[in-house]
Amino acid sequence: MNQDYIKPDNWSIIEEGFDAKRVKSSESLFSIGNGAMGQRANFEEQYSGATFQGSYIAGVYYPDKTRVGWWKNGYPEYFAKVLNAPNWIGINVIVNGESLDLFTCKKVENFKRELNMKEGWLSRQFVATLQNGITINVNTKRFLSLDLDEVGAIQYQITPINSDAEIVFKPYLDSGITNEDTNWDDKFWDTLNVSHENNQAFIEAKTMKTDFYTCTFMESQVFINDKSILIEPNIKADSNLATFSYSYQVKKGDIYTIHKFGGYTVDRNHNKSQLISAAKNVLKMATKKGFVELLNNQKKAWSDIWNMSDITIEGDVKAQQGIRFNIFQLNQTYLGKDSRLNIGPKGFTGEKYGGSTYWDTEAYCIPFYMATKDQQVARNLLEYRYNHLQKAIENAEKLGFKNGAALYPMVTMNGEECHNEWEITFEEIHRNGAIAFAIYNYYRFTGDYGYIPEKGLEVLIGIARFWQQRATFSTNKNQYVILGVTGPNEYENNVNNNWYTNYIAKWCINYAIENIKKVEAEYTSNYTRIMNKAKLSNSEIKEWKAVADNMYFPYSEKHKVFLQQDGFLDKELITVSDLDKSQRPINQKWSWDRILRSPYIKQADTLQGFYFFEDQFSNEELERHFDFYEPFTVHESSLSPCVHSIQAAKLGRMEQAYTFYLRTSRLDLDDYNKEVEEGLHITSMAGTWMSIVEGFGGMRIRNNTLEFEPKIPKQWDAYSFKVNFRNQIIKVNITKDKTHFELEGTKSLEISVNSKLVTITPNNLVTI
Amino acid sequence: MNQDYIKPDNWSIIEEGFDAKRVKSSESLFSIGNGAMGQRANFEEQYSGATFQGSYIAGVYYPDKTRVGWWKNGYPEYFAKVLNAPNWIGINVIVNGESLDLFTCKKVENFKRELNMKEGWLSRQFVATLQNGITINVNTKRFLSLDLDEVGAIQYQITPINSDAEIVFKPYLDSGITNEDTNWDDKFWDTLNVSHENNQAFIEAKTMKTDFYTCTFMESQVFINDKSILIEPNIKADSNLATFSYSYQVKKGDIYTIHKFGGYTVDRNHNKSQLISAAKNVLKMATKKGFVELLNNQKKAWSDIWNMSDITIEGDVKAQQGIRFNIFQLNQTYLGKDSRLNIGPKGFTGEKYGGSTYWDTEAYCIPFYMATKDQQVARNLLEYRYNHLQKAIENAEKLGFKNGAALYPMVTMNGEECHNEWEITFEEIHRNGAIAFAIYNYYRFTGDYGYIPEKGLEVLIGIARFWQQRATFSTNKNQYVILGVTGPNEYENNVNNNWYTNYIAKWCINYAIENIKKVEAEYTSNYTRIMNKAKLSNSEIKEWKAVADNMYFPYSEKHKVFLQQDGFLDKELITVSDLDKSQRPINQKWSWDRILRSPYIKQADTLQGFYFFEDQFSNEELERHFDFYEPFTVHESSLSPCVHSIQAAKLGRMEQAYTFYLRTSRLDLDDYNKEVEEGLHITSMAGTWMSIVEGFGGMRIRNNTLEFEPKIPKQWDAYSFKVNFRNQIIKVNITKDKTHFELEGTKSLEISVNSKLVTITPNNLVTI
Repeated sequence: MNQDYIKPDNWSIIEEGFDAKRVKSSESLFSIGNGAMGQRANFEEQYSGATFQGSYIAGVYYPDKTRVGWWKNGYPEYFAKVLNAPNWIGINVIVNGESLDLFTCKKVENFKRELNMKEGWLSRQFVATLQNGITINVNTKRFLSLDLDEVGAIQYQITPINSDAEIVFKPYLDSGITNEDTNWDDKFWDTLNVSHENNQAFIEAKTMKTDFYTCTFMESQVFINDKSILIEPNIKADSNLATFSYSYQVKKGDIYTIHKFGGYTVDRNHNKSQLISAAKNVLKMATKKGFVELLNNQKKAWSDIWNMSDITIEGDVKAQQGIRFNIFQLNQTYLGKDSRLNIGPKGFTGEKYGGSTYWDTEAYCIPFYMATKDQQVARNLLEYRYNHLQKAIENAEKLGFKNGAALYPMVTMNGEECHNEWEITFEEIHRNGAIAFAIYNYYRFTGDYGYIPEKGLEVLIGIARFWQQRATFSTNKNQYVILGVTGPNEYENNVNNNWYTNYIAKWCINYAIENIKKVEAEYTSNYTRIMNKAKLSNSEIKEWKAVADNMYFPYSEKHKVFLQQDGFLDKELITVSDLDKSQRPINQKWSWDRILRSPYIKQADTLQGFYFFEDQFSNEELERHFDFYEPFTVHESSLSPCVHSIQAAKLGRMEQAYTFYLRTSRLDLDDYNKEVEEGLHITSMAGTWMSIVEGFGGMRIRNNTLEFEPKIPKQWDAYSFKVNFRNQIIKVNITKDKTHFELEGTKSLEISVNSKLVTITPNNLVTI
Repeated sequence: MNQDYIKPDNWSIIEEGFDAKRVKSSESLFSIGNGAMGQRANFEEQYSGATFQGSYIAGVYYPDKTRVGWWKNGYPEYFAKVLNAPNWIGINVIVNGESLDLFTCKKVENFKRELNMKEGWLSRQFVATLQNGITINVNTKRFLSLDLDEVGAIQYQITPINSDAEIVFKPYLDSGITNEDTNWDDKFWDTLNVSHENNQAFIEAKTMKTDFYTCTFMESQVFINDKSILIEPNIKADSNLATFSYSYQVKKGDIYTIHKFGGYTVDRNHNKSQLISAAKNVLKMATKKGFVELLNNQKKAWSDIWNMSDITIEGDVKAQQGIRFNIFQLNQTYLGKDSRLNIGPKGFTGEKYGGSTYWDTEAYCIPFYMATKDQQVARNLLEYRYNHLQKAIENAEKLGFKNGAALYPMVTMNGEECHNEWEITFEEIHRNGAIAFAIYNYYRFTGDYGYIPEKGLEVLIGIARFWQQRATFSTNKNQYVILGVTGPNEYENNVNNNWYTNYIAKWCINYAIENIKKVEAEYTSNYTRIMNKAKLSNSEIKEWKAVADNMYFPYSEKHKVFLQQDGFLDKELITVSDLDKSQRPINQKWSWDRILRSPYIKQADTLQGFYFFEDQFSNEELERHFDFYEPFTVHESSLSPCVHSIQAAKLGRMEQAYTFYLRTSRLDLDDYNKEVEEGLHITSMAGTWMSIVEGFGGMRIRNNTLEFEPKIPKQWDAYSFKVNFRNQIIKVNITKDKTHFELEGTKSLEISVNSKLVTITPNNLVTI
């Protein structure tokens, strides 16, 4: 039974009633972020119950010394940890000398939490009766500004209900924070300076080892019944803590309010000696606007985001809430402004997994960002990898490859590998294929070929070189084989000839060669520059081609399917539906060896290849492979249901597609994997978007043409989405029997709907 | 280039000249032990240079919390660490106020260290000039008594050479010791009490978590020129340190001597409240004898051991020194008196690997102990596993097996698994076969069938059950396969159908069935008891048989060899001799994935099967497999050269056999693996013994007959060994052209020499 305390609502995530057991889950689900920073929905005031405190700054991480049982050659020295950053949201509250603490209060009533996704804010309200008998009404609201992305704002309001009370607001900054996820209990932050000035405080701190300099800052204002009042705060500054106390004798029924503005300035954006003055600058801008205007700007900014990226679903509130939650969290995590950043698997909602960048970005996130943002955003994501090419070459060298072969890391912060399970780090090399596929996908969608001669081709060459060197010629098979890999299905380790890996390896080489030829023909000066830099000869290209042309693919004549890997048919082929339910999820119930020798598939593997290279297979082949592999798939990766939803929809199996859709879109809201406390599954949320647009909507780009094959789940009355296709925006609205297209743009566009060409013109509704 | 500072000598290990860079290596090589305890050859006096301090007590370990990168289901909670025990050997020396410290002395001359293997003692002598100008002559000797195995004795003698000097001996006990090999820097020892009485001191301490109670004790006596003198010591007792100071104004040329007796009493042998009184008891016995008599007893005890277990080699001092070093260290580690103990891979010479018991015991050590000790010793080693049967069943249950299937641990102290690499712990299951093979081997050698109905059969049943459940029926092959294993060659992980594993699995099942039938026929009451206890039915036995009868073995028709595992021929088959030397050892030069997909073999794998089950294959088959696999073998396991030496000798390739012999026998003395600092490779030393007796001597037992096919390396003039075969001792002396047999016993014995039957009678030399 999945979790179900979140109230169904079209636009908000709502929790009603206080339950200490749900606090950590809600801290994840109600997380807020603005691309530059983010935080779990921790309470501002003291809370002594179970909580997982987390504030995160984009791009600020710590290289935690690798922890292993037995060291193996080639392991990276560190695992980059997402770093809990200094806390600026804290506001302790003292009522007649007693700390407000929901865990120890006599009574908490009318507790409600709301994450308003439409407007981008988080609120909380409750009536608490303290041990001292004072009952207070509390209302809080906070947001991280999209407008000024270094700052966030909190409004914290208290009304004593049953008597007058002395209330103290104690806003503070705290850099004495720790990570839950540390290998060796290292100290991650070095506090350099704690200072204050008037109502402002600043903590300068740098991360150990990485030396990221940050300034955490705050400024507060207090009000009675919306009227600003001047209180001289009592100030305490410790070695890593700055606390201001605003004490006031509040009359019963009056509203005592604090507005706290806070955030971070970081040396990625400012000179490290100027962090305090940069902080003062942003505080000046924020306080000049004030809480209300900042909030209005926030609503406007989110309105702009939704205007482009919203997906509406009619007749199914839970489905609607699910997709909006996914789109909201993706936008909170990454807005595409900075090509030095990427999309961490848990975004700003937890520490788990470490690193910021996985193949998730290329395989799942890029389509979402391409279609809902300016195409520069997707290009930034590609450039992120281009900028890491040298590190990928060094990474390959560590594993014995040479001559510019590039192996992109499984997990990274700065281009270096920072994951250390040999079966993943050294062997899950298919990730390299996704990097190349993203270049192809970007060009397919945007038509921006220029990226390839400018930057992409160098990446394609490094990757092709890797595959050629990584393949082994088997004299036994008289073909090239790829030994010792882990495919996308991580429930198999160190297998030979994983079909997906072999297939994408061959594709990468061919795609590199195709583009070398094209660049040679059409971009002569780029061609010369790249060939000189890469020292690539025709004879080397011939070696690549020999591998691509003669790659081995395991195949079953009996089942007429490609085999996930050598030997797959030797397994005991009992389908998941015949597996005792008490044995699931197998990753919690079974030892690793048992998982490995079972046929069970964590996420699409062979089918992932059919998803990427769909046009190279017939529908019958897809159906045969889907019918062969899906029954063995346990979907214990968050990245699994979306691909299966798309393929089920393509095969016209709408009920199954819908079930997969719910699972992917409400994975965290309903906590399918029983781990939402640890944070959200951000990257798979882009897969949810794909399952609607590509799955139900049937959107594809073929030969520069946008195509649709709209379908609708029977549970829905209608749904709509928008796609930014080559700087024109197409709105698609699908009902049970019709599809409407609207074009926001300047010139007409020919699209394909159910294989028929249709011309849509700006601002005319076309109904099919 | 290997290390070569050890002087060749028939009976001693000798180092001359002091070199601080060699200290850690020598601390390993000169280690002493008596089966109950052991210690690295650390200096008694203070030493501020690089050193690896280690004293160890048999059976006293610590369950160190498991350290992994990512936790996997089924991992044991702890890794049992060999525990550095309280130090009792320490004697600090103060000369005119300056500490003697060889690292900081002005000069060290005539330094010599000797480990006298014939008599079982370690000595050191040197002339040191301190910073204060005083020159002293130092002679030390120490040993761990075989006679009173709770005690050791040290004689430390100083003569001031160039002037009178005030010399202080400061014998001490120290329980404030640490392990180098700790996962989390835990404290391992809890000191309970430090006490003293007259010239005796006692530290009672218990291990954390395991609660092994120990008392470390000492008593000292001082002498001038061999004349006992009474000095009232200055006593200091701290929280984990007890120091006695014996100060004396020594005249130039006089010999100032301390005799220190020390050791441990442990709660495995005494009531934990009686440890001090037990210590007083053993001190009383030791001091009553005194250093000289104790040493004489030591010589006698070692003489008895050598009388039975010595191997002589004439004409090749290095070969002679090598085999004696191996035999000596084996006897220092394990004497077979206590079935609760076993043979740790590093014995009492280091901390690495942890745990005390690996499959090394069954596969390598038992033959040595069977042939050179009373057969009860080998039986004790078998009973050790019998006593752990229930733990082996629980271990299998953790991995999802049921119904009494037993999986013996890869590494253990008390029967529980305590190793945590999934590819080893969960998958290196062939170890289970070695446990069964040892039962077969024991019966084959001793003729003591009684062990099987009494105890062994239960073990065989648990193991057979495991194999039947672990095999998978492949509908594809219409045979049983064993998926996801690591064979003896740990340079392959998670492979399918490792030939060795499949072969020994089949053998185990058949051997269990054969013995069930025999016990049913000949030991009815045992049979009934065992069947009731095991709840074993005929239908279950049929299921076993189905697996054994229809096991799949990978085979190459082209090469006419069994394949190490599925897919072996897809590898790039470049032999070790064609591999660039700069790439070796590959375990230090290559990343793990590269090792895994290479064809290189760490130690005998398919050939290990040919070694165990030699009679099931023809010589031609052995030769073909040897010629196929040995060229890919890098011998980077200490357990590798011995098996290859035996097989090379069998194939008449004496030069190759001799090279392998030197490598196995002088592995540590010459530091082939460049790691002797960490400790010695104890278990492979039994393999060295096998390489002479089974390899060159060609000893086998077939049909209750002892067989020999003597050969001699051309570098040797003669060699001899003794074998205790069924309570008669046969001495074999092999020269270039003859073999002499002598029987110590009471009745004549028919043996086979080069396939001809020969009768030898007690005390008559038979020459062939």
